[in-house]
Amino acid sequence: MSDLQPAPGGDFQPGPGTDLDPWLDTYALRASGLAASEVRALFAVASRPEVVSLAGGMPYVRAIPRELVAGAFDRMLLADAPAALQYGSGQGLPRLREQILEVMAEEGITASVDDVVTTTGSQQAIDLVTKLFVDPGDVILAEGPSYVGALGVFKSYQADVVHLSMDADGLVPELLEAAIREQRAAGKRIKFLYTIPNFHNPAGVTLSAERRPQIVEICRREGVLIVEDNPYGLIWFDAPPPPPMHTLNPDGVVYLGSFSKTFAPGFRVGWAVAPHAVREKLVLATESAILSPSSFNHHLIAEYLETVDWRAQVARFRDVYRERRDAMLAALEEHLPRLSWNVPDGGFYVWVRLPEELHSKQMLPRAVRELVAYTPGTGFYADGQGGREMRLSFCYPTPEFIEEGVRRLASVVDGELELVRQFAGTGSLTPRDRDRAVASPPPDLT
Amino acid sequence: MSDLQPAPGGDFQPGPGTDLDPWLDTYALRASGLAASEVRALFAVASRPEVVSLAGGMPYVRAIPRELVAGAFDRMLLADAPAALQYGSGQGLPRLREQILEVMAEEGITASVDDVVTTTGSQQAIDLVTKLFVDPGDVILAEGPSYVGALGVFKSYQADVVHLSMDADGLVPELLEAAIREQRAAGKRIKFLYTIPNFHNPAGVTLSAERRPQIVEICRREGVLIVEDNPYGLIWFDAPPPPPMHTLNPDGVVYLGSFSKTFAPGFRVGWAVAPHAVREKLVLATESAILSPSSFNHHLIAEYLETVDWRAQVARFRDVYRERRDAMLAALEEHLPRLSWNVPDGGFYVWVRLPEELHSKQMLPRAVRELVAYTPGTGFYADGQGGREMRLSFCYPTPEFIEEGVRRLASVVDGELELVRQFAGTGSLTPRDRDRAVASPPPDLT
Repeated sequence: MSDLQPAPGGDFQPGPGTDLDPWLDTYALRASGLAASEVRALFAVASRPEVVSLAGGMPYVRAIPRELVAGAFDRMLLADAPAALQYGSGQGLPRLREQILEVMAEEGITASVDDVVTTTGSQQAIDLVTKLFVDPGDVILAEGPSYVGALGVFKSYQADVVHLSMDADGLVPELLEAAIREQRAAGKRIKFLYTIPNFHNPAGVTLSAERRPQIVEICRREGVLIVEDNPYGLIWFDAPPPPPMHTLNPDGVVYLGSFSKTFAPGFRVGWAVAPHAVREKLVLATESAILSPSSFNHHLIAEYLETVDWRAQVARFRDVYRERRDAMLAALEEHLPRLSWNVPDGGFYVWVRLPEELHSKQMLPRAVRELVAYTPGTGFYADGQGGREMRLSFCYPTPEFIEEGVRRLASVVDGELELVRQFAGTGSLTPRDRDRAVASPPPDLT
Repeated sequence: MSDLQPAPGGDFQPGPGTDLDPWLDTYALRASGLAASEVRALFAVASRPEVVSLAGGMPYVRAIPRELVAGAFDRMLLADAPAALQYGSGQGLPRLREQILEVMAEEGITASVDDVVTTTGSQQAIDLVTKLFVDPGDVILAEGPSYVGALGVFKSYQADVVHLSMDADGLVPELLEAAIREQRAAGKRIKFLYTIPNFHNPAGVTLSAERRPQIVEICRREGVLIVEDNPYGLIWFDAPPPPPMHTLNPDGVVYLGSFSKTFAPGFRVGWAVAPHAVREKLVLATESAILSPSSFNHHLIAEYLETVDWRAQVARFRDVYRERRDAMLAALEEHLPRLSWNVPDGGFYVWVRLPEELHSKQMLPRAVRELVAYTPGTGFYADGQGGREMRLSFCYPTPEFIEEGVRRLASVVDGELELVRQFAGTGSLTPRDRDRAVASPPPDLT
């Protein structure tokens, strides 16, 4: 939680102290890398109804008709109750893994059912791949910014993350090559490239069709494994993204998919498709971690995929999120024209750049006081960058709330800018200065 | 799978080779500790209907009336669908954690809801605790034999497991003291004592009431954390076991519980209760590993616990398993009086000692050919012990199948003993000798 913790008097609950921990000398070295995830604090903020949260990455599950889930459950319980209540295969229910092939076929991937390993959400796949490959001090290449949950995992295994900048077309091949060269020249072992090529979280960018074979070829030539994390690929707004890099070199890519965005995250079912030998080790790693995944959820999703028109449901999600993206872009145009941002072609996020006088993390307590939340850019870098960036999510709030949230955010940004300019040249601002400067009461939107 | 793999021509599927793994030089050092779990191979064996499996640890979930699950689901979906489909708190649904306090109160534990961390089955709690505490080469003290799934985790974090022998009253305090002394004299860091005090898996033994405070006091004095794994505590047959060690020193014990035996393993919901500072780190570790647990399963179990007489269901499980234990003991008396075993007062397992001429792992392919499966003792030790021991599970097969399974096992044991005696003094047996020696066709019980 530390990264989102404002000064005392802010809106967050400070975590209890650990000064008296009698086990302090007993922890593993890696335990010091377990920092509180920003996501956790965001959940806490987002759950307060008076706050418009543009912060979390929660899908809008209310777009799933309840009877679809109920129907799948009823059929599943009639047909498969004993198996659904029992331990299952560590690799995942074979029937579900067959169906995952159909889901991936939507994006052009062909694979064998044997090469699919289900996981407790994609998050567990990231954890297990890192556990398998990373010794302390090893390098992981990742976009900068990158997914906060992956960075947390990498830190927990004492990896060194080396960020690669993106442009509007995603990863830059020349920068990738240079980074590999530099790291190796410095004697570092590179374990993999972690990348989110479609509708990047948080940057909203998509890796262009031209660059995909270039990235794959560089990694193939240099012997760098690619971990391709693709939770959002089916959530496109105008046209599908280019085919996954896995289609270009299946032996060089661990591909990660998830039902969290196309169905619901509450089941915690994701998967990895890995080169043969890696897949075998992934199965062992997941068995060690959780013995077997939830048979109950596997049977339920299998029934859902078999008996419900899930493609129509994914199309419904696309419509929902497209409308919300449009609402967010329109609101930004109207209320915050002085900022810059990208236009995502899918997914959940707009990545916003602030004027250089502002700091997204320092501004957050003020924003929460004004009843709007966002995610400061700092959480998406392993090295403290990101102060001038923020992630705005359009996945969860309705278009009306998005508009109101951006309006509130604009008043925060304006207030901060005014404050900074007023005090320019008079030394740094104290919290009390800031308190005095913004006196407007929070808007009422309950 | 390697540990259960018989010679070619046996009944197991050999795993595909990994000779051509292009990533072989890329794995982390810890990946070499990821051995195939015996449990996985056992699931494969147990799933073939013609085999009487006395091997797995699968609860008899058919003892749960289907309508109890259906009712809980219907109410849950009406009341909580959006939350059940959504991401949840990393620590677990607060309502469920409150109810876990009630479950633990059955065994005398009092704790705060803040100190409960839900996990993806107890297995994940073992994984996370080990990740938190163990650096490569650190020592974990554990009973010998111990739970195979825990040993797999310990190995995957490169721990050194030091086994402590048990007698009929469980762990022996003097041996614990001696082991701590010896390990420290050898310069080793001891991270925790992993123990299953009730109806031990696999040994079937229960730590006596007299010894519990002694074990707790030794660990308190020596600064050794206790990880008390208690999945079977409520599955007692005649009288409840003594109160958990957690009740004696909550600050020195990480207590692990599970719904896998009292409800169903298919949900993968277990929990840890930990000293305050450890609990905070456990929450971070679980968020890093899986972001959040399955809200769907948490809501469903919460509804089940609130609206179903779950205590009556646990009592029903007790009756089922008591009858099966009795069937197994009676069958052992009748068919295998030359072996020795313990009489478990609860749980799922009888631990059997073989005559010294036999080896439980070497005998297994023969047993599977005779259509009975058990778990060789070797899987329950980190150091290759256990060849003269085997675990027989009475949890899953009906009493009739248990009787038939033990009968088949007796014919295997008799055949092996005869063979060994016949060839005594003539050098070692070849697989062909064994094939010739047992020519009886497998019995038909389908």
